Amino acid sequence: MRVLILGGDGYLGWPTAMDFAAAGHEVTVVDNYLRRIIAEETNSEALLSTPSLTQRAAKFKDITGHTIETIIGDLADPELMMDVVKNTSPDTIIHYAEQPSAPYSMRGFPEARKTFKNNLDVTFNVIWAMLEHAPQAHMVKLGTMGEYGTPNIDIEEGWIDIDHKGRSGRFLFPRAAGSLYHTTKVLDTDLLWFYVRTYGLKVTDLMQGPVYGLSTDQADLDPALCPNFHYDDIFGTLVNRFLVQAVAGVPLTVYGGGGQTRGYLNLRDTLQCVRLAAENPASEGELKIFNQLTETFSVNQVADKVQAVGNSMGLNVEVKSIPNPRKELEEHYYNPVHSGLKELGLEPHLMTDDVVAQMLERIIEAKDRIVADRIMPRVSWK
Amino acid sequence: MRVLILGGDGYLGWPTAMDFAAAGHEVTVVDNYLRRIIAEETNSEALLSTPSLTQRAAKFKDITGHTIETIIGDLADPELMMDVVKNTSPDTIIHYAEQPSAPYSMRGFPEARKTFKNNLDVTFNVIWAMLEHAPQAHMVKLGTMGEYGTPNIDIEEGWIDIDHKGRSGRFLFPRAAGSLYHTTKVLDTDLLWFYVRTYGLKVTDLMQGPVYGLSTDQADLDPALCPNFHYDDIFGTLVNRFLVQAVAGVPLTVYGGGGQTRGYLNLRDTLQCVRLAAENPASEGELKIFNQLTETFSVNQVADKVQAVGNSMGLNVEVKSIPNPRKELEEHYYNPVHSGLKELGLEPHLMTDDVVAQMLERIIEAKDRIVADRIMPRVSWK
Repeated sequence: MRVLILGGDGYLGWPTAMDFAAAGHEVTVVDNYLRRIIAEETNSEALLSTPSLTQRAAKFKDITGHTIETIIGDLADPELMMDVVKNTSPDTIIHYAEQPSAPYSMRGFPEARKTFKNNLDVTFNVIWAMLEHAPQAHMVKLGTMGEYGTPNIDIEEGWIDIDHKGRSGRFLFPRAAGSLYHTTKVLDTDLLWFYVRTYGLKVTDLMQGPVYGLSTDQADLDPALCPNFHYDDIFGTLVNRFLVQAVAGVPLTVYGGGGQTRGYLNLRDTLQCVRLAAENPASEGELKIFNQLTETFSVNQVADKVQAVGNSMGLNVEVKSIPNPRKELEEHYYNPVHSGLKELGLEPHLMTDDVVAQMLERIIEAKDRIVADRIMPRVSWK
Repeated sequence: MRVLILGGDGYLGWPTAMDFAAAGHEVTVVDNYLRRIIAEETNSEALLSTPSLTQRAAKFKDITGHTIETIIGDLADPELMMDVVKNTSPDTIIHYAEQPSAPYSMRGFPEARKTFKNNLDVTFNVIWAMLEHAPQAHMVKLGTMGEYGTPNIDIEEGWIDIDHKGRSGRFLFPRAAGSLYHTTKVLDTDLLWFYVRTYGLKVTDLMQGPVYGLSTDQADLDPALCPNFHYDDIFGTLVNRFLVQAVAGVPLTVYGGGGQTRGYLNLRDTLQCVRLAAENPASEGELKIFNQLTETFSVNQVADKVQAVGNSMGLNVEVKSIPNPRKELEEHYYNPVHSGLKELGLEPHLMTDDVVAQMLERIIEAKDRIVADRIMPRVSWK
């Protein structure tokens, strides 16, 4: 199929592009390097060097023979979005093109505004580009488990049947996110659901948990193909941050009590999930929603695991609670349903000790590149 | 108190400004004339002449001695918003500054984009202007009953307690609106709730039904003070459209089956509700939500009422179903709770035959100004 990946330079976008291309699909990626620009602005560059998207695509072609078409441009500009969708005539549009950092979105007005406008404008534009130029295409949209927050009831997969005063109805599961970034994805979901039910678009919205890892079949072929592995407080996800802290000899930074529980998944499983979503498209007028995670851990459980494996490898890993820069519950109920993708065939790569050890080994090789200034939280919600 | 009214040139904004000023409050209104510009673009001007905001404020001052400060500018520009909030230092901010037409928002990409960007940007900017310059102010935000759509369960006032699998939680009542305009207000609510709970802002969100009428204590003082009474398919609300059609001798345009039921209120009751909301502010970190309506009618019931009263006045009123340009259920359950504002003291002006007759009499005086081209729907959802 013809696959258009919006935000194809990202931690997930680039491995996704390689995965689809390696499977024989025609892949075009678009990116405006927003994450790279923010990383420079905030001293949050990735651990490993990441050649430009064009250079990476050329290297990938050299090694595998597969082509990834690259377009550098801003999809918040409706003209570019319309042109790209019209010219590529995609069967599947994978939408990753959002400012993905919660702390960045909470830094102040300019950062909040950039996040708000970029994320909402891109989603609005891709909806309209589909309506005008690709109404039969299927959009796979990356949402986040963070949209739901930490409700006191089980988190269903996107939808909930509510019985109320003797009557019943089916509704979007209520959402209450913990950062502006996560809230922009709530707004995306509401907007998508409106256009899906009104105009019959086909959309799958993936509520993804925090992703960890840096290894995929294609990424492992050459260092130049590595995903943008961030360990900083701006773009680094929890597990990746802890892994780098363990190697750097910095105590693992548990925010507050550490009882915050989330659903995690391996980068390899993100690729599986997105492929499964693309291969099992939503029907006309359907907003299909999956909770994309493979297992849940509290922050303390992740810290314990990284500490245990690190120590077994001869690292001297400490764990330290620091004041929580975020506004979030540190003890709460958390029970998300996540059976839909497994029913489609997902075979989880769980966070075993071996998996943690392999990641630590990769990071130990790059130990000299770790910049300690990027580790402690620099943005507070207060 | 110091009251800042955003969107103070509108059908509701202007009467609200007069109402607060007449009650002795210090009132500043801001507007960019977006509705006037769209009305000109779409041949949808109001029935009665509406002098500029500045002229109306001058006339109001002449007659009553009360000052209404006016600022003409675009609140989607964050610099203007920040300046206005900083300089006026309001106790209460009343936010009407949105593109209010559902059909306009469904016309095509340019109109959808203008609606989306204006409405979301203004809400985002006012939140940040409060955070930076008026964190103790109380915002009264005009939402719409249309945010909820027509669910199969009773519509609570903004919030719902959900029991699910043996556990329970309190959530925003699920929303599913019928146009992009209404959807922008869903997004506003999501955004407000995030910033309210994260930073302790005080916000009251009024879920208002369609408003009718053109008479208020201040508006009746002089023709120049009249609200922008629209009867066209773009800005005209249902009752107002039917009243003008009855006078023009055009059959009342019932869209489809006419079983569509909504909660209505008199313009005088909008003023009461907004005053009650302002006088009973939300607490820090509270998003207070009221359903702002006084009675529910189906389209057919409104048509029957206007027909009966019109005929009793010697008009020859016909009712005619036309193909529904919208995508909506024409038969559905509809039972919204609306007790909160009554508990605060709202005394409803119901849609009695006398009230309908008085409105018809006002419109008969302006019969020569009715432009028939503006009556039939010109925008389809399809």
